[in-house]
Amino acid sequence: MKGKETVFFKNAPKILGTGCIVGKNESDGPLAEYFDERITDGRYGEKTWEQAESKFHNTALEFALKKAGITANELGCILGGDLLNQCVAASFAWRDSGIPFIGLYGACSTFVEGLALAGQFVDASSFPTAAVSVSSHFCTAERQYRNPLAYGGQRPPTAQRTVTGAGCAIVGKSDKDAPEIKCATFGCVTDSGISDANNMGAAMAPAAYETLSTHFKNTNTVPSDYDLIATGDLGEVGRKILIDLLSRDGISLGDEYIDCGCEMFDIKRQDMHSGASGCACAATVFSGYIMHGLLKKRWKKVLLAGTGSLQSPLTVQQKETIPGVCHAVVIEV
Amino acid sequence: MKGKETVFFKNAPKILGTGCIVGKNESDGPLAEYFDERITDGRYGEKTWEQAESKFHNTALEFALKKAGITANELGCILGGDLLNQCVAASFAWRDSGIPFIGLYGACSTFVEGLALAGQFVDASSFPTAAVSVSSHFCTAERQYRNPLAYGGQRPPTAQRTVTGAGCAIVGKSDKDAPEIKCATFGCVTDSGISDANNMGAAMAPAAYETLSTHFKNTNTVPSDYDLIATGDLGEVGRKILIDLLSRDGISLGDEYIDCGCEMFDIKRQDMHSGASGCACAATVFSGYIMHGLLKKRWKKVLLAGTGSLQSPLTVQQKETIPGVCHAVVIEV
Repeated sequence: MKGKETVFFKNAPKILGTGCIVGKNESDGPLAEYFDERITDGRYGEKTWEQAESKFHNTALEFALKKAGITANELGCILGGDLLNQCVAASFAWRDSGIPFIGLYGACSTFVEGLALAGQFVDASSFPTAAVSVSSHFCTAERQYRNPLAYGGQRPPTAQRTVTGAGCAIVGKSDKDAPEIKCATFGCVTDSGISDANNMGAAMAPAAYETLSTHFKNTNTVPSDYDLIATGDLGEVGRKILIDLLSRDGISLGDEYIDCGCEMFDIKRQDMHSGASGCACAATVFSGYIMHGLLKKRWKKVLLAGTGSLQSPLTVQQKETIPGVCHAVVIEV
Repeated sequence: MKGKETVFFKNAPKILGTGCIVGKNESDGPLAEYFDERITDGRYGEKTWEQAESKFHNTALEFALKKAGITANELGCILGGDLLNQCVAASFAWRDSGIPFIGLYGACSTFVEGLALAGQFVDASSFPTAAVSVSSHFCTAERQYRNPLAYGGQRPPTAQRTVTGAGCAIVGKSDKDAPEIKCATFGCVTDSGISDANNMGAAMAPAAYETLSTHFKNTNTVPSDYDLIATGDLGEVGRKILIDLLSRDGISLGDEYIDCGCEMFDIKRQDMHSGASGCACAATVFSGYIMHGLLKKRWKKVLLAGTGSLQSPLTVQQKETIPGVCHAVVIEV
């Protein structure tokens, strides 16, 4: 089925609006001005971090609906997920919504996976509009994947910091000059033998390489055809590996390439090791910064590649290697 | 968006073949003859139960491909998931496959969620074929959700037993007289305040009630329009609640209603409390028993409703209530 990983949309599914909320460290980073809501209380007024993370979805959706100029009643479905066991942040968020919920798990690639599926639903006119909403939270992720926060564990230089926040995009049809999802390339689970759970960038880079290579081939494009190429959360380590892997094939990503995980923080000043990660990394950077650039026509053709690292604490204990996955969409205005 | 939860397919996506594998207790149940492979070793020759669960996917796909008469190379994508944290059973299964993987999480509703999405992809001609594969394993689920197996914990009468196995369906277009996915109704996250993680049937029944009610209304059908109505894994407790809830609206599910969780085991003889559950419950009962009945024209119009209970051990510890979700598809031959 080589050559068929890319789905081309025919009926112009568009991104009608996006919304995002981020935590304290993200608000202290260079992209702060682009986020709709910046909070300082990691509990967001709730009793638990998990409840806070659920509430992020509601806030991100509210901003996105407002900008899209539609109401929640007009949504055909919400697609989304998060990093928590059994994806409870996302599913609990929509408990009383009365909106059909389609749960996804693609680790940190979930936002782009959702954009691709929402694009498919809207392109086929199955739903007039669909929302994509994903979240992550440094505090819920740390205690689930690593150590209790109070333990104050040391993190190696390759470690990335989970973004606290949520991003949401509304996909629908419109005559308005909104950014359009042109196509989506779905990626394969790619394992290059990394077993260090503190080096997820290295685990994900080969998946990004596979998906981007496939995407360029299937769409008959080269990196310079895009005004911006953004990977989700490879961080400093993974970003370099991706550039290196592609360069061996004679492909240069060029100056238009960014990694959302490298953009989120002022890495040196904020002491963020290899950068940012988490479902909310690509989701908030896209919903805030990249969407702003698309609407301002700073970039007209964007390739967004969500990257996910597929492991659980149990598989790490069982000495399994860590595969990655990467899905990509092209967005044009 | 009331009335828009149901997506009607226009271009006849068909189920070209199914495959399934089950464990020892399922092989001792009344449906044993319908399963493609029955194993007695819960490790399936692997070092860990988790690796065994991953391998179930590969086996189920192999059977499904064989019956569909296609090769893995012809698949546009695999959609699927499981119950493990970060859905590692499914994603690890496809590590070396070279087939795009779209990860889903709908708890035990994942198989039907996947059928609906595969139907959408094939209906829109985005992929010529798509596979749906989901798994669960009693041993991996028990230690993750409840207690180490060696602990020998007592289970209350409302408890259900996680099915060990995997089911896979290949969706594609064909001139053959294969069962066709006519439409899909996507459900909302429904919470009726159940907080007992050993009573998932009660937690899921209200979601099944909501989705089925919506489905009957949107499709302008009544239960007697179907030759078979099957819910995923409500078990004895949830099944009765669903029948009761619908009867209050004057809707009788009739004799054609079964719950896969009640069919899998000889509940009394096998001492299975409220019945079976797990992603693989609906997936294997459909892929084995129901698909057999469709191909033999025993049933010509089937309503399959996957039911999922949305909780994690952490949310239960945090005293959260347990919402449910239910997605439904109509399959006709």
